[in-house]
Amino acid sequence: MNALQEKILKDGIVKQGNILKVDSFLNHQMDVELFNEMGKEWKKRFEGKKIDKILTIEASGIAIACIAAQHFGVPVVFAKKAKSVNLDGEMYTAEVESFTHKNKNTVIVSKKFISEGEGILIIDDFLANGCALQGLIHIVQAAGAHVEGIGIAIEKGFQAGGRMIRNMGYQLESLAIIDAMDWETGTITFRE
Amino acid sequence: MNALQEKILKDGIVKQGNILKVDSFLNHQMDVELFNEMGKEWKKRFEGKKIDKILTIEASGIAIACIAAQHFGVPVVFAKKAKSVNLDGEMYTAEVESFTHKNKNTVIVSKKFISEGEGILIIDDFLANGCALQGLIHIVQAAGAHVEGIGIAIEKGFQAGGRMIRNMGYQLESLAIIDAMDWETGTITFRE
Repeated sequence: MNALQEKILKDGIVKQGNILKVDSFLNHQMDVELFNEMGKEWKKRFEGKKIDKILTIEASGIAIACIAAQHFGVPVVFAKKAKSVNLDGEMYTAEVESFTHKNKNTVIVSKKFISEGEGILIIDDFLANGCALQGLIHIVQAAGAHVEGIGIAIEKGFQAGGRMIRNMGYQLESLAIIDAMDWETGTITFRE
Repeated sequence: MNALQEKILKDGIVKQGNILKVDSFLNHQMDVELFNEMGKEWKKRFEGKKIDKILTIEASGIAIACIAAQHFGVPVVFAKKAKSVNLDGEMYTAEVESFTHKNKNTVIVSKKFISEGEGILIIDDFLANGCALQGLIHIVQAAGAHVEGIGIAIEKGFQAGGRMIRNMGYQLESLAIIDAMDWETGTITFRE
């Protein structure tokens, strides 16, 4: 069992509707030491890959991606959820649906920050139906760059996203894959 | 001149309307090594302060706060801009206006993550009119916690926020205070 899985069992809270609350260490209050352990683990799992940049999506992906980036020695780019008056020039866009917030967002990445031929590691906190991830993959492909790997903190293994992404041939490394959650008993079952 | 000031002169772009674009290293693409230098500098400037937690605001404050947190050995809490269906329980709220996006947001912090008596270091990327900062200060005070200091990356010294915050007696440490910008010549003048 890795550090993230241990933390989920200790501090994660299962709620009705297949919701896992990890706001005490992952996406509201953030355990930076834990993120550092996660970064080390991804570095090991993506050993030998040509990674020029890490791509993530705001907001909670940013922290994990930045701490992980220290192990790869590369900059991070985050996809923004709303058009800012301060972000001019041409951009790559993708539509993504949020499971948590039950809404749709257009995410954008300035064309300046992903270049043809670059090796991109995508990092995000959650993978459920895979919508956010598909949006990020779409952006990398539109730039003529290459997805070298995908690092996810928590994958909901009982939803379709992970299977779909693996079927597409990507190296998807989720540090905690949850195969089942029971809110009545608080039980969380990780994939072996 | 510190690392951030050098980077601003090298890669910052002055646009009409007192806009400084730093999206190539601060708030879209992120230079994690630079953030580490900034974290070191804040650690030095807040030496001797009792800091239990760092508070920031999504999205671009998160990266800087998390890298800085490694130097303080404390967790980070970020104020969220929208109510999530996944964030239940009681929360502290504040209204903040965005200079960049020209809109108003309610920001929220779960009451679980700031406790009475805690020493809080607030970190954010930009300080202009100080609205976001006042919102965060309000939240810390509502929790009965104490603002031990405020670390800002870039302060627009020609706007009122910094003066107001310093007049309130806070130790405000902005790593780059810009006293003037000229978009026609691209000149940036830092405060000594």
